[in-house]
Amino acid sequence: MDKLQFDKHTSAQYNAELEEARKNLMQMGGLVEQQVDDAVRALMEMDTSLAQRVIETDTTVNEMELDIDEECTRILARRHPAASDLRFIIAVSRAVTDLERMGDEAAKVARHTLELADTGSGPQGYVELRHIGVEVRHMVQHSLDAFARLDADSALDVMQQDKSVDLEYGTAIRSLITTMMEDPRSISRALNVMWSLRSLERIGDHARNIAESVIYLVKGKDVRHKKLEHVEAQVKRD
Amino acid sequence: MDKLQFDKHTSAQYNAELEEARKNLMQMGGLVEQQVDDAVRALMEMDTSLAQRVIETDTTVNEMELDIDEECTRILARRHPAASDLRFIIAVSRAVTDLERMGDEAAKVARHTLELADTGSGPQGYVELRHIGVEVRHMVQHSLDAFARLDADSALDVMQQDKSVDLEYGTAIRSLITTMMEDPRSISRALNVMWSLRSLERIGDHARNIAESVIYLVKGKDVRHKKLEHVEAQVKRD
Repeated sequence: MDKLQFDKHTSAQYNAELEEARKNLMQMGGLVEQQVDDAVRALMEMDTSLAQRVIETDTTVNEMELDIDEECTRILARRHPAASDLRFIIAVSRAVTDLERMGDEAAKVARHTLELADTGSGPQGYVELRHIGVEVRHMVQHSLDAFARLDADSALDVMQQDKSVDLEYGTAIRSLITTMMEDPRSISRALNVMWSLRSLERIGDHARNIAESVIYLVKGKDVRHKKLEHVEAQVKRD
Repeated sequence: MDKLQFDKHTSAQYNAELEEARKNLMQMGGLVEQQVDDAVRALMEMDTSLAQRVIETDTTVNEMELDIDEECTRILARRHPAASDLRFIIAVSRAVTDLERMGDEAAKVARHTLELADTGSGPQGYVELRHIGVEVRHMVQHSLDAFARLDADSALDVMQQDKSVDLEYGTAIRSLITTMMEDPRSISRALNVMWSLRSLERIGDHARNIAESVIYLVKGKDVRHKKLEHVEAQVKRD
């Protein structure tokens, strides 16, 4: 496999362009991480003005997606990247898509928060929300760290976390269904909690996707749709 | 703007590679279209063996995603496409991601069908499901046709359809919530219908994304996150 060699180009300008793309991705990542953090906090504390801010941030996140994608296209057109540089551009471009979707899901959580605030809601289902919220925030953070440090082992950790979030999500949904059946007056509220949980679970999926992009970038293997044990073997091999 | 010029390369081999990517995308599109079609039909007719087949097809769809993406990466590395060729590769690669997600959502609908069949369900909410199902199937079909014919106007139609599906989806969800409140015994069933509706609505979103990729390919404008009126102006301009 070719080594990662982002610093070895004869053209200083080319290096600067790749570095710029990396920097912008990380900046977008930081913003989305904050958005997810704020969305969970707004929901927990029924902070409607924070929820409002999460929704508004989405526009900036969308613009960043377009800018970074355009930058990647320009590099492809002018620099004809090969080997690890090409994988880098592809990984950045995939990660940007995932970050944008995370932003969408965070905004959805914020919208459900506003609906919950409207109805004046109790704390049922919040233990699960808080727990999954914290885990998913960590996943987002760790997937971005793994990208920044080109660390396939950390990326693998994120994939493992996703599995545990999926299990907890299933448990939380089943317990909410029980609540709804026992107390039909809670239905509307429980549905808002349910959709929020679903969005958090989706954010976890996107963090997992970013982790897969990191492994693609570092190891040169496309591990999407592969079983975790298989990916583990790939990452540990070399 | 540069003209689309897929047939003008001096290298016959390069032409063949682009044509192969196009053909494979269309083949994957056909399979996903069938999968969506089958998922809706299985749900309507409570056909569990058809639902099972939809779930199994997902593996093939996933493999096609990896194959076509690898093909695109190879073309980027070897041929250094520029202008409309580069946009073509980017559009194919984005469309493939959307098709794969559609396949996932179709499989989710199929899983909910199996759960509904288990509980022995009535027909409530099915009018909306059937209606949205038919519309979404058309969107998928039309987005792929627009890609095949490089037709930005048809792509714009798909974007308009998405808006109407989103509205109908909102109405259907509200009516299901009413049903759940009136008859708490229907909760579990209604939730399966609700998740199925959500998946169909997401399939519509992905068809819209493919339509946006077609406009990017044909017009050279990235219209993601733009208001429909803005996109309309872009498409009609030249």
